[in-house]
Amino acid sequence: MSARDIFHESVKQALIKDQWQVTDDPLELEWEEVKVKIDLGAERLITAERGNERIAVEIKSFISPSAISDFHTALGQFLNYKIMLDVNEPERELYLAIPIEAYENFFQSRLAQAAVNQNQVKLLVYDPIAEEVVRWIN
Amino acid sequence: MSARDIFHESVKQALIKDQWQVTDDPLELEWEEVKVKIDLGAERLITAERGNERIAVEIKSFISPSAISDFHTALGQFLNYKIMLDVNEPERELYLAIPIEAYENFFQSRLAQAAVNQNQVKLLVYDPIAEEVVRWIN
Repeated sequence: MSARDIFHESVKQALIKDQWQVTDDPLELEWEEVKVKIDLGAERLITAERGNERIAVEIKSFISPSAISDFHTALGQFLNYKIMLDVNEPERELYLAIPIEAYENFFQSRLAQAAVNQNQVKLLVYDPIAEEVVRWIN
Repeated sequence: MSARDIFHESVKQALIKDQWQVTDDPLELEWEEVKVKIDLGAERLITAERGNERIAVEIKSFISPSAISDFHTALGQFLNYKIMLDVNEPERELYLAIPIEAYENFFQSRLAQAAVNQNQVKLLVYDPIAEEVVRWIN
């Protein structure tokens, strides 16, 4: 299993422990002429539900040497997925899942905080070792 | 010279033909703890001025096999660079430079149009062969 797959599985296990049911893995989004291959690069979008709550989760490992490069792509994906979700399933909330190490370091920078706030990025902070949800940040 | 460098030089020549003076190549942006290596992947941010106008240009080639992947990264970079520019030089306008082929194809999709509109992405459409600015879209 690749490192990215391990993080992916870790988030799924964390959600299951948190009483969520994983409903799509991966979710394929489509909007007219653009079909987004969500599993490109093995970082896939999944969906889950718990009671009346429905979420989609963009899982990121932030394991590359450059957190800022990972963040550029994660932010662009989040905003594009959000546009497509709003067309397909407007009631489903989109979260960007990030490991606690990235949350405690890169995501404390003023750039990351400004970008998260200005673009209303919802975060799901997870512990990839314990396979647990650490924090939801809306 | 790599394919990306050729597109980069092409945009510079297009700006020079259009009476702009290129002032930084590459521009290095810095905001407290985050120093963005703008030349990562050889797609660099440049700055130019013409009379009282000052711009920064994020040059994209869109030559990878996946336009949507290129677009995720381009959009995230644009928004993060904009946050950093607004701190450093709020009067400088940021443009995303895209080749005419990408403009006439991927950028006509409803996803791209929604993303460009919602995120107020300014576009500079260029012809990489003729080395000319085709269109500014604010």
